[in-house]
This record gives sequence, structure tokens and C-alpha cells, in this order.
Amino acid sequence: MTKQELFQIIKKKKSFLCIGLDTDISKIPPHLKKLDDPVFEFNKNIIDHTHEFSLAYKPNIAFYERRGTEGWISLEKTIEYLKKFDVFTIADAKRGDIGNTSKMYAKAFLDNLDFDAITVAPYMGIDSVSPFLEYKNKWAIVLALTSNKGAFDFQFTESKTSSNKLFEDVLIKSQDWGTDDNTMYVVGATQAEMLADIRKIIPDHFLLVPGVGAQGGCMEEVARYGINRQCGLIVNSSRGIIYASDGIDFAEKARDKAVALQKQMESILLQNNLI
Amino acid sequence: MTKQELFQIIKKKKSFLCIGLDTDISKIPPHLKKLDDPVFEFNKNIIDHTHEFSLAYKPNIAFYERRGTEGWISLEKTIEYLKKFDVFTIADAKRGDIGNTSKMYAKAFLDNLDFDAITVAPYMGIDSVSPFLEYKNKWAIVLALTSNKGAFDFQFTESKTSSNKLFEDVLIKSQDWGTDDNTMYVVGATQAEMLADIRKIIPDHFLLVPGVGAQGGCMEEVARYGINRQCGLIVNSSRGIIYASDGIDFAEKARDKAVALQKQMESILLQNNLI
Repeated sequence: MTKQELFQIIKKKKSFLCIGLDTDISKIPPHLKKLDDPVFEFNKNIIDHTHEFSLAYKPNIAFYERRGTEGWISLEKTIEYLKKFDVFTIADAKRGDIGNTSKMYAKAFLDNLDFDAITVAPYMGIDSVSPFLEYKNKWAIVLALTSNKGAFDFQFTESKTSSNKLFEDVLIKSQDWGTDDNTMYVVGATQAEMLADIRKIIPDHFLLVPGVGAQGGCMEEVARYGINRQCGLIVNSSRGIIYASDGIDFAEKARDKAVALQKQMESILLQNNLI
Repeated sequence: MTKQELFQIIKKKKSFLCIGLDTDISKIPPHLKKLDDPVFEFNKNIIDHTHEFSLAYKPNIAFYERRGTEGWISLEKTIEYLKKFDVFTIADAKRGDIGNTSKMYAKAFLDNLDFDAITVAPYMGIDSVSPFLEYKNKWAIVLALTSNKGAFDFQFTESKTSSNKLFEDVLIKSQDWGTDDNTMYVVGATQAEMLADIRKIIPDHFLLVPGVGAQGGCMEEVARYGINRQCGLIVNSSRGIIYASDGIDFAEKARDKAVALQKQMESILLQNNLI
């Protein structure tokens, strides 16, 4: 998917919502558990009830690998099902290895499974990220500033020579590896006030923003500091939507949560003259 | 496996060799390709011919995920087969995510697949690594200084406040998260001269050292600067061993390469009065 196509979907659906399909088998409503593939059935129901209001879906691969081969089958069925809809698909995999090996991960997620994007860890530098940038109209979403407690361990360390923080160095250097047509960045919503400075470095790139909801981030703050002229934001909510209810009404309740976020986003897009 | 048990195997086999099972289906000898699971058959042959000379095996997960569900089945069969032998098993996965999610990866690799160890990326800090330290007698092998070109992008950046390089900060901080009984570090053989300084920070930890062979690292150098009183080294070779021949004799040729490295290691262990 191109950047232009992404922006078209945002305008059509009046939404920049991403739903995290972090589907934990132990949290699935009991009535689905007797089915052959409860995780896929859960995802299918969530997707059916929310795709009109969602720009993107993001299965976190850990939740599938935790179940081995069975989990991988649920993942394959989920991405195949997502392809029926007008949505952007993200493999939240946080991969990164030497070039020879990153190439294998790129093939796994961007070619075989045909995700539009994959999240990538930058610690190993250029050759760990570049193989993900070689697929036409696909995206590497590089971890910059994450939403967790451990983000403060290394990401804020200032460089002696450049005075940049590590996450700023990641933003700066990685611009030599790709463009705003094939690279996005993860910037946690819990660090919303940092977005103003981040936008000085990367005014045009799309940002994937986790941490709204369960992790405590605020969407209004994220939009205030992070929105750009093509929206430039994909805001993710996982647990807040998919586990809104653990009963037979889980998909309807998920839809209600998605609609509430979409309405907030519609209002933000209007305020910014983007729709 | 405990540190003491690891050292016992090193002394028994006179080897600290790790064989990287980076099994690329396109590089498997033609005569195996007609079998049901060529990747597992290849691995099984390599293991049968080399386990007497090898301390450890390290499947790189990318090579399995590249083949989707089929690849995951090959991986499950490979780890199950490895469990028959007196070897240390490493999932080279380079995972790392927010705590809630790293916990899923830990369950996948250290519990379900029952690997002894998993490689972990440190960019996201404490809560991305800690879940891998919660399994008794299992290990997190944290990326510190890698063997690839991109290692120079961020890992050598000096901190303004501490003057430590990023990889040194990783070594220092992560010592608060675990101990030398559950944490190891990846230190590339291509940076062997750095090992002397690294040993000042972590004298007692085991190091997983990739990059000997195809990537150009030298084992003598690694041992000179990196060995400690319990050996403290696991030196990996992947392509140099498993692709020593692409003919019907691939396993015998792999054994020859493994034996040659084991002999070098035996001599190093003798010189250091460890056997």
C-alpha cells in the first residue's frame, strides 16, 4: 500500500485507528473455545465488527508463536481474512538480525504472509533494517521511542558527539536507509509531548503510536503534537478494544469501543482540515 | 541447564562450539529434497554427525519462519531431536517487546519449545528482557556488540553522561536485571579486540560469539581476549559448517569442519588449564 492510498483510507473511514490483534487464548470468551480455531474465530468476529471504523490491524506475533504451529495457522488465516478488507496490515514482530537473516524475516512477513508492514528493532543498524525496505509498497516500521517502562533505559541516552538522544539518532540515521514512502516509526503515546520535537526531525513520516488506552496514553495529546498534512498517525489500541467484554457480546462491545475512538479521530481530522 | 552443567559439557567434549542451524531450504542437497521434511532431515543428519564435538546448537528462527507453518513444524522436530543429546540449545530469535508480550515469547521458546536459551534484543529495556529471566535454569542471551556492519550505527555511540558506549551501557544496566547464572551476551567475533574491555565489565558471564568463519572473525583472538575460568565462551559457526558441502557427503563434511574447530578449541582449553 502506498502512502497516498493509506491517506485515502483515512479520509474515507475518517479514522486512523489500528486494532491490535494481541489475541490471548486464555482471554477468549468461553463460547468460542469449543470451535476448531478459537483465536481465528475471535479475530474474524472482531474484524467483521470493526473494519468499517479501522484503518489498520496489527497482530502481535508473540501471541501466535506462543501457541506454536497452531498459532501460526491462526495467524495465516487471520492475515488472509484481513486481505478481504480495505485495511492496512502490520505484523508487530519487532524483528532485526544480520542482513542475510533479516532478509528471511522480510520474506516471511512481507512476501509469504503478505503483510503491508512489519515492526523492526534498530539495535543492529543498517543491514538489519534495509532488507525490509526492498519490497515495493511495503513498509518497515522502526522502533524509535517505545511506550514501556524500559524505554528509559537506553532510548533517552544522549550521545557525547551529537547530543542527540538514542531514539533521535535512530530517526536521523534511518532516513539514509529509506524514505517516508517505505519507513514509519513507532512512537509511544505515553511520550506524547516528545512528538513535537520528533516532528522537527521527521515532518512527513507516518508514526505508529501504541500505548493509547491500557498503557495510559492520551489521543488528543498525540494528535496535538503528532498530526501532519497527511494525518501521519496510526494510533493503536489493543486490549481496550478486543477485551472490552469477555462475554458473548465481545465483538459488539469491541465495535462500540472502536466507534468511540473513530469519532474522536473524526473530530481531530475535521479540526485539522484533513477531511 | 545450569552454568556448572554447561562447563561440564565443555570439559567432557573439549569443545565450546555452537553450530548454527540456519537451514536455508534453497541450499539443501538435492537428494534430501524429495523427503517429507527436507529441513528436519538435513538438521538431523548434521546433528548426528556433529553432536560429539559440539557444545550447543542454535537454530536461527528466521530460517524457519520464512517457511510459515511448515517451517515451524521443522523447528519443533529439530528441538525435540536435539533434546536426545547432551547439548545446550539456543533459539536465535532476537526477540524483545513490552513486558506483557515478551512474556509470550518467553513462553513460546523457553517453555513450549523448551530451548535452554533465547537471544534477546535490548532496545526496549528492562521489561522487554526480564520475562526471559523468569525460567529456572534457562538463559536470556542479550545482544550487546553484534558482528554485522550495522553494529557501528548505534552500538558504539558514547553516552554524554557516562562516557560508556551503548553496548557497554547494555552490559552494565542488564546486570541489575539478571545474574551470570541466567544472562549471557552476544559479542561478535569481528570485534574480538573489544573483548578485553568487555571482560572488565562482565568477567564471569558466558558470551555467545557469532561471526567466526563466514563473517571473518578469528577464534584465536576471541579466546585470547574472551576466555575466563569457566571458559565463558560459546563460539558459533553456521554456514562454514552446515554448508561445507552441497553434495551427498554434506554431513560428513560438516563433521570434518566441526572436528577441526573442536581441535582448535581443545588446544585453547588446554593452554588455559581448563581441561
